[in-house]
Amino acid sequence: MIITAGIHDLVAEDLHRVEAKMRQFVGDSNETLAEAIDYLVDAGGKRLRPIVVLLATRFQPTDAEKAASLAAAVEMLHTATLVHDDLIDNALFRRGSPTLNAKWSPGATILTGDYMFSRSASLAAETESVRIVKVFATTLMTIVNGELQQLFNNGHDAAPPTLEEYHQRIFAKTASLFAASAKMGGILAKLPEARIQTLYDYGYHLGMAFQVMDDILDFQGDEARLGKPVANDLRQGIITLPVLHFLENHPDHPIIMKAAARLHPTEDEIRAVVAEIRESGSLQRALDEARRFAMQAKKALQSLPDNQYRQALAYIADYAVARDI
Amino acid sequence: MIITAGIHDLVAEDLHRVEAKMRQFVGDSNETLAEAIDYLVDAGGKRLRPIVVLLATRFQPTDAEKAASLAAAVEMLHTATLVHDDLIDNALFRRGSPTLNAKWSPGATILTGDYMFSRSASLAAETESVRIVKVFATTLMTIVNGELQQLFNNGHDAAPPTLEEYHQRIFAKTASLFAASAKMGGILAKLPEARIQTLYDYGYHLGMAFQVMDDILDFQGDEARLGKPVANDLRQGIITLPVLHFLENHPDHPIIMKAAARLHPTEDEIRAVVAEIRESGSLQRALDEARRFAMQAKKALQSLPDNQYRQALAYIADYAVARDI
Repeated sequence: MIITAGIHDLVAEDLHRVEAKMRQFVGDSNETLAEAIDYLVDAGGKRLRPIVVLLATRFQPTDAEKAASLAAAVEMLHTATLVHDDLIDNALFRRGSPTLNAKWSPGATILTGDYMFSRSASLAAETESVRIVKVFATTLMTIVNGELQQLFNNGHDAAPPTLEEYHQRIFAKTASLFAASAKMGGILAKLPEARIQTLYDYGYHLGMAFQVMDDILDFQGDEARLGKPVANDLRQGIITLPVLHFLENHPDHPIIMKAAARLHPTEDEIRAVVAEIRESGSLQRALDEARRFAMQAKKALQSLPDNQYRQALAYIADYAVARDI
Repeated sequence: MIITAGIHDLVAEDLHRVEAKMRQFVGDSNETLAEAIDYLVDAGGKRLRPIVVLLATRFQPTDAEKAASLAAAVEMLHTATLVHDDLIDNALFRRGSPTLNAKWSPGATILTGDYMFSRSASLAAETESVRIVKVFATTLMTIVNGELQQLFNNGHDAAPPTLEEYHQRIFAKTASLFAASAKMGGILAKLPEARIQTLYDYGYHLGMAFQVMDDILDFQGDEARLGKPVANDLRQGIITLPVLHFLENHPDHPIIMKAAARLHPTEDEIRAVVAEIRESGSLQRALDEARRFAMQAKKALQSLPDNQYRQALAYIADYAVARDI
């Protein structure tokens, strides 16, 4: 997904501030840690969460330094969770670059993540808003709790989740931080409560659309781009929306049951079931759902003033799901 | 170290609140995580840091709920750092109880620590003071940064630290959180800045005394009580104050150089050098330094009103170093 130059231009100056804040090393000098953080910032993604924060702050004049601190806090938090996730999953690449755990000891990787959590809390506090710090801390609790739930469900008797459980999981994993990003931007901009809620709704649905799309792309198998094999989630026993749709017409499909029970299907089995899922129309059904979420995100925006910031937020929602499958 | 009943009585009601807040599970129900947190709270220590927080809040009337939240935040943060430390060190026991990593997978242990970090930030935010959240986040940065420094120094060419480096290390490891505990208590109680600084000085010196004492006890070898072998630090190549004193008269002592270079002395070598250190008077010299720190902690208190809370803080400083060797 590429955010157009137009949106980047809207927040370009702020994004420079965000990058600088993320790289800023506070406390005693520790070159190795500073290098690691530079590396992680360099290897970062599209800065979608900071862009959402920044756009949300633009609906009323807002202190640019504080907005940049909040956006940096969100991206730093997101990066810290990825650092720990990659270690836990023993992932060696992310976005085509080696992960920190591929280069460093587990101990150094854990502590670098911890440092980034504390730095992100410190950046959130630079907004001078206790309410923002509370939303921030609660969101991290939601994210981590979701990951723990998933880990604890890893028993050999694990059944596929219900659709509701799937939605809960992707809320915790992705939508909670998008929703919090938009909401905290609105809080910082001192918007009326109804608009803060509107921004939360937008971020929630954008995040849901984004994660469903991610779960579809996992079946598209662009290994070079994603840096992981096709159906990576299924290999790990994580059942996503395309599989849930597929199961409706193929209940108790043996390979999927084997995967869900963490019994590690063979490579041939994975390839066979991926082909079946692709041919079943389940990816298209999941895409329809992603587009419904994106539509709801845009619908939420309708109560905001129709300006270039609202248009940019709408564009992000469209773009999140603008991909043929 | 036993805190007398007198001090516990002073803050008993608050300590009950602190325990309840630590166990309170926020967010979606997750029984396994709640059990883990209960287990860690049960296995907790003397609650010295929460007691310091609570006593510091007593110099002016302070909201008891907020004081308990702050004290719980500090203890939760401390516990979270221990959860990650024990995983990194592969420690199987702490205070005689199995560590979380001895029972759980590394992934679940990392995430439980992360959850506790986020919960501790959320508790700190319950004080409604951005200044407290900032001190809190900065202190975690100091602690983690100190651990990373130690880890990065783990090369095979590692020389023993200077005395200054030792002091920096134990500040990051222990004194920073004691100092922050006393300071944040003073901030919550809305004390004048000079008194907040006084409390910081008290906490700093108490923490330094406490860690030097801990480093001495590591040579006392009460394996059953400490749950780790004698000279555990030296075995890991960590050079503490008794060793630094010993090195003054035994420069380049081969076993210590071997340990400092992480070349793992044999059990016989460790026992031999421990006996040498014990006979050298270096433990006594380190104890003298611990007592000087405790004295400075008490001296800092002199500018506070002479009431039972000040007496309790002074008692804690005395007790921290009241042990013959």
